[in-house]
Amino acid sequence: MKFGGTSLGDVERMHRAARHIRREHDAGHEIAVVVSAMAGETDRLAALARAVSPMHDAREYDAIVATGEQVSAGMVAIILQKLGVQARSWQGWQIAFNTSDDHGAARILGIDTALLNERLALGQVAVICGFQGIGPDRRVTTLGRGGSDTSAVAVAAALGADCCEIYTDVDGVYTTDPRIVPRARRLARISYEEMLEMASLGAKVLQTRSVELAMTHGVRLRVRSTFDEPDGRPSDIPAFDAGIGTLVCDEDEIVEQHIVSGIAYARDEAKVTLLRVADRPGIAAGVFGPLAAAGINVDMIVQNVSHDGRHTDLTFTVPKSDLDRALATIEAARDVIGYERLSGSTDIVKVSVIGIGMRSHAGVAAQMFHTLAERGINIQAITTSEIKVSVLIEAAYAELAVRALHSAYGLDAH
Amino acid sequence: MKFGGTSLGDVERMHRAARHIRREHDAGHEIAVVVSAMAGETDRLAALARAVSPMHDAREYDAIVATGEQVSAGMVAIILQKLGVQARSWQGWQIAFNTSDDHGAARILGIDTALLNERLALGQVAVICGFQGIGPDRRVTTLGRGGSDTSAVAVAAALGADCCEIYTDVDGVYTTDPRIVPRARRLARISYEEMLEMASLGAKVLQTRSVELAMTHGVRLRVRSTFDEPDGRPSDIPAFDAGIGTLVCDEDEIVEQHIVSGIAYARDEAKVTLLRVADRPGIAAGVFGPLAAAGINVDMIVQNVSHDGRHTDLTFTVPKSDLDRALATIEAARDVIGYERLSGSTDIVKVSVIGIGMRSHAGVAAQMFHTLAERGINIQAITTSEIKVSVLIEAAYAELAVRALHSAYGLDAH
Repeated sequence: MKFGGTSLGDVERMHRAARHIRREHDAGHEIAVVVSAMAGETDRLAALARAVSPMHDAREYDAIVATGEQVSAGMVAIILQKLGVQARSWQGWQIAFNTSDDHGAARILGIDTALLNERLALGQVAVICGFQGIGPDRRVTTLGRGGSDTSAVAVAAALGADCCEIYTDVDGVYTTDPRIVPRARRLARISYEEMLEMASLGAKVLQTRSVELAMTHGVRLRVRSTFDEPDGRPSDIPAFDAGIGTLVCDEDEIVEQHIVSGIAYARDEAKVTLLRVADRPGIAAGVFGPLAAAGINVDMIVQNVSHDGRHTDLTFTVPKSDLDRALATIEAARDVIGYERLSGSTDIVKVSVIGIGMRSHAGVAAQMFHTLAERGINIQAITTSEIKVSVLIEAAYAELAVRALHSAYGLDAH
Repeated sequence: MKFGGTSLGDVERMHRAARHIRREHDAGHEIAVVVSAMAGETDRLAALARAVSPMHDAREYDAIVATGEQVSAGMVAIILQKLGVQARSWQGWQIAFNTSDDHGAARILGIDTALLNERLALGQVAVICGFQGIGPDRRVTTLGRGGSDTSAVAVAAALGADCCEIYTDVDGVYTTDPRIVPRARRLARISYEEMLEMASLGAKVLQTRSVELAMTHGVRLRVRSTFDEPDGRPSDIPAFDAGIGTLVCDEDEIVEQHIVSGIAYARDEAKVTLLRVADRPGIAAGVFGPLAAAGINVDMIVQNVSHDGRHTDLTFTVPKSDLDRALATIEAARDVIGYERLSGSTDIVKVSVIGIGMRSHAGVAAQMFHTLAERGINIQAITTSEIKVSVLIEAAYAELAVRALHSAYGLDAH
C-alpha cells in the first residue's frame, strides 16, 4: 500500500490512511506500506538546500530531503499502533533498500527482505520510507522526484506481493481527462503497456518509471482513491474485484479488451519548422546531431516530400522548456545545415489514441484522421507505435479533439 | 566544535558557524563539528508526534525528532564546501554512534572512530548530527533534550580531541547572571566541579550531563560566543589563551584560584512544611518513602529540634512542578505519619555560593549568613557540599541576595 504526499497532507489524512491499512491488516493480509513526505515537505527541504547553495553536493541534498519521509513513516507507525495495529517505520538503510550512488536519481539495486518478511509474518505492518535508499558508500540516496511510486513497486516485487495498491487523490485511471470530458469512464483494468503510454503522454496518475518496473517484475498495481471510505470492504486480492479503482496488469488478465482504452493529450511540447532545407543525404544528422549533443529530446519528426527535388521542409517537436535552446542550436548550425527559414511554435498539442487492441485491429488510425477532419482540425504531424497513434494539432482544438475522439471510439459513459 | 540551535537558526547564522569552522580548519586543526537542529525544529517535530498520539512509541518519536539534526548537518556541510572546506555530514548510524535502546534518553555506549579519523586525517571536516545515535536494535535513538552538548563531549572524548568548543549565544560562563548583576564577570577558567554545581543550580550555559562526561573523560571544554567575529584569530589550543570564552577544565589547570567562583540561583523549587510531626525514629522514612515511590525528588531537608521532646517541624523542597503531587502524597499518608498541619509554598528561591577554594578555606558559609543577615534576609533552610553552600530564602529577596553576595565575595568587575 503506497500513500503519496496529498494522502498524508495532515494529521487527519494520516489517520484516514492508517484506517485503510488497518482494514487490510484486519482482513489477514501481510502489509508493507510505502509513504511519501507530507505534502509540501520535500519542496520545503529542497528550498533549504538551495538557499545555502544552488550547486549543492547531491549526497548532502539527499540526506536533507530524505528526512521528509522519515517523519511521515514515524507518524503513520504511531497512528497504526494507536489503532491497535502492530507497526514500525523503516528507513532505507535499515532494510536495506540498496541503490546505486547516483544521488538524486539513484537506481534500485536490490532490497533485503529477510528482516521485513520476518516481521510481516508476525503481523507487524512495515511502514517504509519511500523515495530513499542507501548507496554502496553507506550514504542516503534518493530516487528522484515522484520516486515513492517506484519504491512501492520495488518493495512489492522484492516481497513477491500479491498486489501493490497506490492510494492517490483520484479513484483510478480514466479513459481521458474528466475535466475535459465529463463522460470519461474509469477503467476497471488497463495493461502495463497502455498505462505506460498514458503516463508518458500526460496522464499524471503514476510515474512512468514505476509502471515500467511493475511490468518488468509482473507486479499487479491498483490505483485507488485515498478518499474512499477506509472502513469498507477489504481488498479481495485473489479475485481482484473490479469495483474499486483501476488494476494495472498484464494484458492476459484483461478479459474484455477494448480496441481503444484511452485518449491522452500533452501540452508540454513545442514545434520547430525548417523551411526549404537542402534535400540531400545526411541532412537529418546535420539537424538532429547538434540537438542530441545539446541534450534536447526530439519527439515527432515529419519530413515532407521534396518540392522540387532539391529542397524539403522539416518539422519536429521538442519539450516546450527546450524550445529556445533548440532554436539557438539550429541557428548556430545554419551554415552547415542550410535552410531558408526557421520558426518555432508553442501553439500546439499532442493528442493520442491508445489501446492494445490496435495490434489486431486495423482502421484505428484512419478513424482518428476521419474524426478530426470532420471537425475541421488540421493534423500537423503524426507518429504511431504498436499500441498508439499520436497527432500534433493546433492548441485551441485540444478539447474539441479529445471529446470527439472519446465519442468516436465508443468510450463515453452511458 | 559544537553549534546549538540558536547558532544555526537561519541560513545566515549557518554561514557564520561555517566561517568559525573554516577559521579553525585553515589553521591546520582537524575538526569534527556537532550540530543541533535549527532553532524551533525539534519542537515542531515533537509537536507533530504528539499531535498523532500523546502516548507515542518512543522509537518512532526518536526517528521523527532526529531528522532535525540531519537537515542542519547536511546544510552546514554544503556551506562548508561552498567556502572551500572539504566536509561531509554523518548521521548517528553512519559513524556508528552506539547507544543503549533507552529511546528518548539513550546512554552512550561507544563511538566508532576509525572512519571519522581516516577522513579527518585527509582534511575533511566531519559534520555530525548531535542528539542522535543508533541502538543495539539498529534503530535511531536520541539522548534527550539538550543532548547535543553531550554528543559533542562524547565525540571529543572518543577522538581524543585537544578541546571541545561549545559555541552558544553567550560569550562564556559568568560569576552570576548578568541580567541581575550588571557587574558580573566572565570567568576565564572554571573547574568541572564548579561548572557542575553552576549547571545544576540554574546556570543554563551547559547541560549537566555533558559536564559530567567531560569531567570523567578529561575533555577540556570551551564555552564561547557564536556571535564573535568568525574570521578572527584561530584557537591556539596548546596555550589555550584565556582571552576568549570560558575554559571548563581540571582544577589543576586553574592557576589563580578564587575561593568563590560564582553565585547561582534557582527559582524552580517549592517548599513543603509539616508542623508538629511526631518526633520518633522512622518518621523521616514515613515522609520520604512515599515521595520516593511517587518519583518526586526531594532536595533540601531541615528538621528542627524538638519543641517538647515529642513533636518537631519538618521542611523540605521539591521541584515546583511536583508540589501538588507531593502535597497529595503526604496527605494520603497522614495517618501513618501523624502531623498537625501541612503547607506548601512556591514563594522561595535557592541561592548558592560555589567555589573549589572552599575546600581549603574556612568561613565562606559564615560570610554568606552574615551578608544575608545584614540585609535582613531570613534563611529558611541550608545545605552544603564540599564546594558550595545553598540557602533557601523568600523569592522577593532573590536579586538583593545575589547582588550582596556577589559584592561580598569580591566578584564584582572593577
